[in-house]
Amino acid sequence: MNQVAEKDAAEIRAAISGMDRAWNAHDMKAYVSYMTEDADWVNVVGMWWKGRDQVYRAHEAYHRTIFKHRQLHEPETVSLRSIASDVVIATIVQTADGFTTPDGHVEPPGRAVLTEVFVRREGEWLLAEGHNTTIVEAAQRSNPVKN
Amino acid sequence: MNQVAEKDAAEIRAAISGMDRAWNAHDMKAYVSYMTEDADWVNVVGMWWKGRDQVYRAHEAYHRTIFKHRQLHEPETVSLRSIASDVVIATIVQTADGFTTPDGHVEPPGRAVLTEVFVRREGEWLLAEGHNTTIVEAAQRSNPVKN
Repeated sequence: MNQVAEKDAAEIRAAISGMDRAWNAHDMKAYVSYMTEDADWVNVVGMWWKGRDQVYRAHEAYHRTIFKHRQLHEPETVSLRSIASDVVIATIVQTADGFTTPDGHVEPPGRAVLTEVFVRREGEWLLAEGHNTTIVEAAQRSNPVKN
Repeated sequence: MNQVAEKDAAEIRAAISGMDRAWNAHDMKAYVSYMTEDADWVNVVGMWWKGRDQVYRAHEAYHRTIFKHRQLHEPETVSLRSIASDVVIATIVQTADGFTTPDGHVEPPGRAVLTEVFVRREGEWLLAEGHNTTIVEAAQRSNPVKN
């Protein structure tokens, strides 16, 4: 298990880059084109969107408001592992610009760790699940495991 | 896809309950017995533990300190969906007691949303990935999607 074939890894990394480009272009139609119809997403404050249509509507609303000026940086880590036939988990560590609060204040940039579950459906790797958590930098020094 | 066979759902729900019981008994050996050797875990502050051994060591350390008196409540939601052969994603909404800070203060209880990816290996459903995010209750009213 675990090891991802080179061709699959290249396709999944291309999908991740494609999602980031779509995000930075605020093109949410393109963004969700990398997802399965049943894709769920959990965001950093624990909102759980069920299915691609909800994921689209939520992101579309935010990209017109709090994410209007927000850009994702190049990921610092993209780690892939195969957990079953046609299923790969990507773990991504990435900085994003801060979001814009309703009163126009721009928050500082911050890092997040994302779990993205990719499945191969009809030959194409698509995102079936995304889950995003803000890295609380001050907490990291109390991590009992140094990795 | 999506629909989980009744027998599989029962086995996965039993594993989730078993993990909760182990957590509440602070028995981390039992807790990680539900996991694959390559299981990763991302916690609420963005710590990423790689493999069952790291997940064990981190939880063992926390259960001797900040989680010493912490209990998980019955989940309010356990939603299962099949994304591929032998792979089921569980999304769980659950309240936990607050943790104990180093100065002995006990934080209030809070809700979290967990993504748990289960795989069937040699006939047994095991956790291959867990990702946990605190639900920021104050943010929920600005969720663009009502679900």
